[in-house]
Amino acid sequence: MYKHIDTAKIRSFCEELFAAYGFSVDESKIITDVLLRADLYGIESHGVQRLVRYHDEITSGQVDVRAKMETLHETGISSCIEANKKMGQLSGVEAMNTAIEKAKKSGCGMVTVRNSNHYGIAGYYSEMAAAEDLIGISMTNTEAICVPTFGSEAMTGTNAMALAMPADPYVFSFDASTTVVPRGTLEVYRKNDEPLPDNWALDVNGAPCSSAAVVIDNIIAKAGGGIAPLGGLGTLHGGHKGFGLSVIVDIFSAVISGGLTSNYVNRKPAHTGICHYCMAIDYGIFGDKKIIKNNLSKFLQELRDSKKAEGHSRIYTHGEKSSETMSQRINGQIPVNEKTLVELHIIAEKLKIKLHV
Amino acid sequence: MYKHIDTAKIRSFCEELFAAYGFSVDESKIITDVLLRADLYGIESHGVQRLVRYHDEITSGQVDVRAKMETLHETGISSCIEANKKMGQLSGVEAMNTAIEKAKKSGCGMVTVRNSNHYGIAGYYSEMAAAEDLIGISMTNTEAICVPTFGSEAMTGTNAMALAMPADPYVFSFDASTTVVPRGTLEVYRKNDEPLPDNWALDVNGAPCSSAAVVIDNIIAKAGGGIAPLGGLGTLHGGHKGFGLSVIVDIFSAVISGGLTSNYVNRKPAHTGICHYCMAIDYGIFGDKKIIKNNLSKFLQELRDSKKAEGHSRIYTHGEKSSETMSQRINGQIPVNEKTLVELHIIAEKLKIKLHV
Repeated sequence: MYKHIDTAKIRSFCEELFAAYGFSVDESKIITDVLLRADLYGIESHGVQRLVRYHDEITSGQVDVRAKMETLHETGISSCIEANKKMGQLSGVEAMNTAIEKAKKSGCGMVTVRNSNHYGIAGYYSEMAAAEDLIGISMTNTEAICVPTFGSEAMTGTNAMALAMPADPYVFSFDASTTVVPRGTLEVYRKNDEPLPDNWALDVNGAPCSSAAVVIDNIIAKAGGGIAPLGGLGTLHGGHKGFGLSVIVDIFSAVISGGLTSNYVNRKPAHTGICHYCMAIDYGIFGDKKIIKNNLSKFLQELRDSKKAEGHSRIYTHGEKSSETMSQRINGQIPVNEKTLVELHIIAEKLKIKLHV
Repeated sequence: MYKHIDTAKIRSFCEELFAAYGFSVDESKIITDVLLRADLYGIESHGVQRLVRYHDEITSGQVDVRAKMETLHETGISSCIEANKKMGQLSGVEAMNTAIEKAKKSGCGMVTVRNSNHYGIAGYYSEMAAAEDLIGISMTNTEAICVPTFGSEAMTGTNAMALAMPADPYVFSFDASTTVVPRGTLEVYRKNDEPLPDNWALDVNGAPCSSAAVVIDNIIAKAGGGIAPLGGLGTLHGGHKGFGLSVIVDIFSAVISGGLTSNYVNRKPAHTGICHYCMAIDYGIFGDKKIIKNNLSKFLQELRDSKKAEGHSRIYTHGEKSSETMSQRINGQIPVNEKTLVELHIIAEKLKIKLHV
């Protein structure tokens, strides 16, 4: 069901593909790098399997290939940016680069971006800051899919939060949706015709629902229902906390940028309106960076070394697993679902380029 | 089981009590205000029922009544503070005041505090910033009580995260532990001899455990086991996300301050070593404050107005419920558990002051 393809081959295909849409060579490399990072980390949902959706977004005009970002408001530590429907990966990289530049000069940089598009994995941007020896934070809203505690209608998005900070031997890299699971996971349950676990999803009346097909169809039709926030349905397991975290993502990305909150995202044919937030902090503003980084490396090692539950041999700190997977795949191969491959061939044909796999 | 006591009476009692320990009149008012805010919000676990624990901490020397905070490192937007075992509420208020001052001058202020003590509800401090028309963030680590995903030993604390931002008619005020529930909730289940819900807690082998008594006794004896992170046991419901959030709280409070991470907190008789983080952001660095505040008020209203689940008539946004409870209690009465009252009488007698209730 999966075909293993040389990473280098899939990279050059993607770069050629994005160039064919009209992106510059540099832009095509950036978009490809964000996309492939997901596959290299083992996050299939955000990798090349998304190319078909990006194809639709670019050709339908949701993404403007020639968009230029505009700075609406700026200080030494902040920026509010209008992305003018730019490709999300380009908005995200430009925003984080601005945040990094400000952090290097002023100690921190906070950049809020409105009117962008889907930007892939949030962790890509927070890790850009970590690669510059800074703390990086990245958030994005999405189309509404998450139902508020005691509600029956999706109002906030998958609303990912990511934070990365340098440590040895692995960067600490947290990257999580604020829903109990992202939509992609429901799609896997649907494909396998498996019932959803309790506390994951709701029907149009706000009652628990174990059919992935019903939930996904309702989401697509905007009929009601959706996925529960992290912590699940109601308040017993802390669902109100996940709901609050998803609101916080909308605050930093959409509310302070004046963009569309999740409940308005993707409501018009040629406009998603997705918003992001990128922040970088030079942790040297708190003391000696070498000591602080060592403090983190030591703490993470203690977590990994702490006692395991019966039946488990490892405790992973955040970023460890993806870093291991990437080291196996970066000079090797990426597993691509055969269904995805069929889609890629169709897109390639439309753009008159060749997929040599 | 609960006795209703005039808020004014309990306030003057607390102020007298803290003065009797040697705190100044102003300090006693601050500590009391933080404590009572919890009762006014309906968060009994962090209100006057905690006085007996504060009594022990002050009289055992974990809290140094005469401690002065020292600034170890400072920039225009940041401060790293050694609290020298100061009472947590005093450290928290001083740290947030510093963050607020920096935010007003420089757009943001980030203050990390090491070697403090239990500071009550995290939301008190984030709301201090919101009262000054800023975004406020507050975090604190605690004694280890939360077991990492796939672990069997508590390594991180309840590790609360709070964020407040001005909005009409209610300030948005998120304040949550990063565990599925705080320890206080387990204590309620123990008192009522009820089995714990699935996915809440673990025994010494890291297996699910439904006995609150077993879990609490193990926590106190540091024998192993503890509470699951937000998202529950394992990864199915996102427990690894809650675990990551708890690590993030330790990063901002303990790692960057050079203080004790949760796994070292409260391991010595006369030293807790608890660490905090306080941040204030002047959201005017992103644009017109009036417009941004309106964006938030509108979004929160849309969330409250969105479709309810069957059997529910309201969707609460964060801070709404506590604000309603406080408006009933502030000029009225606070319900105090009769067991707590007995404890207060004992403490009062030791300090030769009177509790007139």
